[in-house]
Amino acid sequence: MRTRPLKVALLGCGVVGSEVARIMTTHADDLAARIGAPVELAGVAVRRPDKVREGIDPALVTTDATALVKRGDLDIVVEVIGGIEPARTLITTAFEHGASVVSANKALLAQDGAALHAAAGEHGKDLYYEAAVAGAIPLIRPLRESLAGDKVNRVLGIVNGTTNFILDKMDTTGAGYQEALDEATALGYAEADPTADVEGFDAAAKAAILAGIAFHTRVRLDDVYREGMSEVTAADFASAKEMGCTIKLLAICERAEDGASVTARVHPAMIPLSHPLASVRGAYNAVFVESDASGQLMFYGPGAGGAPTASAVLGDLVAVGRNRITGTTGPGESAYAALTVSSMGEVVTRYHISLDVADKPGVLAQVATVFAEHGVSIDTVRQQGKDGEASLVVVTHRASDAALGGTVEALRKLDTVRGVASIMRVEGE
Amino acid sequence: MRTRPLKVALLGCGVVGSEVARIMTTHADDLAARIGAPVELAGVAVRRPDKVREGIDPALVTTDATALVKRGDLDIVVEVIGGIEPARTLITTAFEHGASVVSANKALLAQDGAALHAAAGEHGKDLYYEAAVAGAIPLIRPLRESLAGDKVNRVLGIVNGTTNFILDKMDTTGAGYQEALDEATALGYAEADPTADVEGFDAAAKAAILAGIAFHTRVRLDDVYREGMSEVTAADFASAKEMGCTIKLLAICERAEDGASVTARVHPAMIPLSHPLASVRGAYNAVFVESDASGQLMFYGPGAGGAPTASAVLGDLVAVGRNRITGTTGPGESAYAALTVSSMGEVVTRYHISLDVADKPGVLAQVATVFAEHGVSIDTVRQQGKDGEASLVVVTHRASDAALGGTVEALRKLDTVRGVASIMRVEGE
Repeated sequence: MRTRPLKVALLGCGVVGSEVARIMTTHADDLAARIGAPVELAGVAVRRPDKVREGIDPALVTTDATALVKRGDLDIVVEVIGGIEPARTLITTAFEHGASVVSANKALLAQDGAALHAAAGEHGKDLYYEAAVAGAIPLIRPLRESLAGDKVNRVLGIVNGTTNFILDKMDTTGAGYQEALDEATALGYAEADPTADVEGFDAAAKAAILAGIAFHTRVRLDDVYREGMSEVTAADFASAKEMGCTIKLLAICERAEDGASVTARVHPAMIPLSHPLASVRGAYNAVFVESDASGQLMFYGPGAGGAPTASAVLGDLVAVGRNRITGTTGPGESAYAALTVSSMGEVVTRYHISLDVADKPGVLAQVATVFAEHGVSIDTVRQQGKDGEASLVVVTHRASDAALGGTVEALRKLDTVRGVASIMRVEGE
Repeated sequence: MRTRPLKVALLGCGVVGSEVARIMTTHADDLAARIGAPVELAGVAVRRPDKVREGIDPALVTTDATALVKRGDLDIVVEVIGGIEPARTLITTAFEHGASVVSANKALLAQDGAALHAAAGEHGKDLYYEAAVAGAIPLIRPLRESLAGDKVNRVLGIVNGTTNFILDKMDTTGAGYQEALDEATALGYAEADPTADVEGFDAAAKAAILAGIAFHTRVRLDDVYREGMSEVTAADFASAKEMGCTIKLLAICERAEDGASVTARVHPAMIPLSHPLASVRGAYNAVFVESDASGQLMFYGPGAGGAPTASAVLGDLVAVGRNRITGTTGPGESAYAALTVSSMGEVVTRYHISLDVADKPGVLAQVATVFAEHGVSIDTVRQQGKDGEASLVVVTHRASDAALGGTVEALRKLDTVRGVASIMRVEGE
């Protein structure tokens, strides 16, 4: 074993960073044996230097993150600050000054992954980020390495624990959205401002990262269609149950059937209860990966939390540490396929549509005609009358999102259609 | 990209090998882009040279595997022959002549992994074997790399598809063992001689490999306790159902609570229906990994089959190919922890025991006394009388296998105990 230690700087010492520091100390011997050299915590950049941090030498703590990454003697910078700036500048500065980087920053990777990878490549350094997607669940490495000899066709997953907790609560207790959100907030699963989770921004960042790796194609955050789950109602869950389904907020990255283009999207969807994702409870994450040769694989585990995320960070730390010692770097970005990233209109799936309609003869015929005119084939229709009002529940065969959009627009113009109560995609069949 | 191709030799061209060759051809451009150099199939060693092999140039086919691995210009040898010899000699010869090796050979890795790793290390070559455990499911790489910064405490999994198919069939249809085995054979899930699967030899080899990687300790095949599932009966499934459980053949690798020793074992066990492994159907595999920081992770997918296994082989091929180009090698064997591998007697778990007893007063008191004398605490007892005969079903709290063994031996000596109908461990709680 090499005796000269690998010097590691930690940017951020919150929930994840403090766990990384703790494990680096308590498991120092194991890490050294697995890397082939001891690791030394060389500095910790924080915003609040006065906070007592158990197990961390106060002499290592600094508020000057820039000076820390410019030291020039660092082997690895662990970035667990999150957000775009100053994280982005600190990471590129770290590369310029000779360090490799391990990051848990999904927002930054989704927005600027290509530029960061380019900076890492230019300086011959590693950029690892297993912790950026689905916490402790090994997902980046399996997609990037284990499936490197296969052709991935679809990634379908629950990648946000907060929204899964809320939807699971609505499903199992019949609670409404607000009630379930309040419980998630009280238990610490949701943040004070839950927007990033419930509106799907967090999941969309992860979808962009996963799609990029799965399809060897640059997928930007803007390429990801995003629809949150704050408008899912108890009535939607009742409809789902009638279909033998439940509702999950899914991140879906798909290769089109012709193989030449891909899509990435985040939205609530009905999935059959028999699908393994349907039984993912609470704040857990799970991701299905479908490939030509391997068939269907699933990866399941805690998608967030200090210790699980730290586990992923430290796995990367070991890999990057080994690379430093052997003087090599890992696979890096792979975007050679450069497939077209299509918009949501190109997505083909099934739909569950609830319409409020006038309760009189001929309505179904009118509605069915609109579907037919837009080339959307109907699988089943269910009519329910109540006091002069009626509801019509239509489940379609597979159709493009554009065709469905046109259908709905035309339906809204029918006199007999009082309103479109809900539109939900049906996935996982 | 490097233009000089990586030369790959294929040892064995059966179900897996032919898929490897097929994908190497059809996905040649993707593999080249991902590795950074083209791959060239340089030779294929087979037993029956006359068989027509679609897509493989007959000029590449040879029956002289030894001459092939001695060529000296090979970069990577893919060994998918299986069994101990000639695979072992061919692999070591390949290392001696400058090639790295990708293998799917669980039996060989479990029996001689240490020697093969040593040979690889001596010659500065890679030995990768993701396909040896659980087919396409990424498991070796996540354990060896993703969790390299964590402390794995338990690996609990269904790692044999044949036996899972049989047990699933018994569970869902009420079929007996022989009937379910016959169906598995008819459908091609079981081999003509199913011994390696149903007696747990295959799962034991995988358990040895997984335990070695998870605990950074050499675990030999002989260290793995092994009990097959050919004696599981429909009555056992009925008992399991009464407990809210099902029965699975599990491979279990555990760190003892004191952290200083580990055990590895394969046997049928009851697991609660609420456990994710309980719902693994058909020939699928799934492995739970419990670690200090990451918590519970699960990996699920097809555990066998030509294409899934080829996917794992090709993932390794890409990794080893990259290593060749950058002039480095992967992590290699990690056995630094060198923990004690304890025998089955040290394993602590719960037990479900069915006794045939005389239907007269005092029997329960006698039986309970025997358990108490051996320090095995009883959780629940259920008595059922029928025509002078009675059965007693005892479920224990956690106890060592040695204590349970002593208890059962003493029970057999009681006049009032006519027989021990079944003993089954209860896991996953």
